[in-house]
Amino acid sequence: MSDSTPIAVVLVSGGLDSATVLAKAQSQGFACIGVSFDYGQRHRWELTCAARLCEAAGVADHRVISLDPMPLQGSALTGGGDVPHPNDLESIGGSVPATYVPARNTIFLSMALGMAEVCGSGDLFIGANAVDYSGYPDCRPEYIAAFETLANLATKAGVEGDGIRVHAPLLDMTKAEIILDGTRLGVDYGLTSSCYDPASDGQPCGMCESCVLRAAGFEQAGLADPLCDRSTGC
Amino acid sequence: MSDSTPIAVVLVSGGLDSATVLAKAQSQGFACIGVSFDYGQRHRWELTCAARLCEAAGVADHRVISLDPMPLQGSALTGGGDVPHPNDLESIGGSVPATYVPARNTIFLSMALGMAEVCGSGDLFIGANAVDYSGYPDCRPEYIAAFETLANLATKAGVEGDGIRVHAPLLDMTKAEIILDGTRLGVDYGLTSSCYDPASDGQPCGMCESCVLRAAGFEQAGLADPLCDRSTGC
Repeated sequence: MSDSTPIAVVLVSGGLDSATVLAKAQSQGFACIGVSFDYGQRHRWELTCAARLCEAAGVADHRVISLDPMPLQGSALTGGGDVPHPNDLESIGGSVPATYVPARNTIFLSMALGMAEVCGSGDLFIGANAVDYSGYPDCRPEYIAAFETLANLATKAGVEGDGIRVHAPLLDMTKAEIILDGTRLGVDYGLTSSCYDPASDGQPCGMCESCVLRAAGFEQAGLADPLCDRSTGC
Repeated sequence: MSDSTPIAVVLVSGGLDSATVLAKAQSQGFACIGVSFDYGQRHRWELTCAARLCEAAGVADHRVISLDPMPLQGSALTGGGDVPHPNDLESIGGSVPATYVPARNTIFLSMALGMAEVCGSGDLFIGANAVDYSGYPDCRPEYIAAFETLANLATKAGVEGDGIRVHAPLLDMTKAEIILDGTRLGVDYGLTSSCYDPASDGQPCGMCESCVLRAAGFEQAGLADPLCDRSTGC
C-alpha cells in the first residue's frame, strides 16, 4: 500500500455481515486492519472464520484481542442460558433478546477506536444491521451516530486531527441485499459462520435466530448458501 | 447491603481523584463495585493503591480487568516515549499532551458499562476532572455527556430498564477542592498514587505533570500530602 492509502479498522466477527463490510471497505480503497475479539463467546468458531476471511481478502494485519469476559456475561452467547430457537422469522425481534451481550458493540468499537488512533486511522467499519433484526439496541442508526459523536469528542484525532468516521454500511440493508452485494464483491460466504451455537467443527445448528435469518436471506437472494452445500445441516 | 441499596460501578485508578469519587459515591448511599484496569501502564503501582483504597473503603468487590495493551499504545504512559517534566503549572494543559492514552476513558467506561449491566447497576462513577488540566479530550463535560447518551442508546438497561447515569462529580472542581472534599469524607490520600513514573516501591518522581498538579493542590488546600510525609521525595 502507498503512504497515501487510507487505513480502516474493520470489526471482523467472522460472520456474513462483517465479511461483506470488509469487502465494501476494501472496494472503497481502504487498506484494512481486521479486528476480532475473543470474549469467551460460545461460538468461538467464528474466530477461525475471521482469520480465514482476512487471509482470503488479503488483509495482512488481523488482530484477535482477548477481552476479560466478565463485563460481557449474562448473555445466552456467553454461557448465560440456552441459545433460543425461534420458530419462525416473525418471532424474531421486538424486545431485547436473550442473545444480547451487555455493551458489546460499545466495548468493541472503543477498542477499535484506540487501535485506529494508534495506527493513524480515522475510519472504523462495523457490520451492524438494523433491518432484519432490530432487537439489539447497539445495532441502531442512532447508536452508531452517537458513537461517532463520542469518538470525535474522546480522541486526539477528533480534537486535533482529521476526525473519526464510523461506517456502518449495512445498517439499512436487508440480509438478502447484503448477500447480493457481497457476492458481487467476491465474498466467499462459505468461509463465514453465522451460527450462535455451532458444533466444534463449525457445523451450524440451523435453529438459532442467526441461522434462521441467514437461511431466509439466502432464499430471498435466490442464492444457495455455500456453507450448507458443505454440510448436512441445511 | 440490603436488596434496595443501589449499586454503582466506580472506576478506581488508585489516584487522588478516583479515591475521592469512591468516597463520594459511598456517601451518596451506593454500594460500590471498584474497577481497575491493567493495560500495561508504566505506573502500575497505582493498581496496588487501588486495591488498598478499596480495602480501606470497605469495598467488598474490587475487580482488576486486564486489557490487551495494543489499542492503548503510543502514549508516554504506555511506553511511547518519556513522561514529560513540566517546568511549572502554566506549561500544563492546552493541547493534547504526550500522556494522552488513545481512547482510554472510552474503553474504561465501556467495560464498566458492561459490568454495570451484568451487576444490575445503572450508575457509573468516574473521576474525570476538567479544571486543573483540560488537555485530555476525554475528561471534558461534553465527553461525559456524550458517553451517557451513548450508554442509554447502547444497552438493554437504557432501552428497557431504568437507564444509565454517568457521574463525574469532580468535573468542575479544582484539585484543592477535591482534596478538601475527600479529606472531609475521610479519604486517606497516603494510600493513593498520582505519579506517572513512580519507582517500583511507589516513590513519586515529583516532576511529572501529575506530581506537579498534586503538590499544587495540597498547597492550595493548605494541607500536607501524607504521601510526601512518608517519603523523601517531597
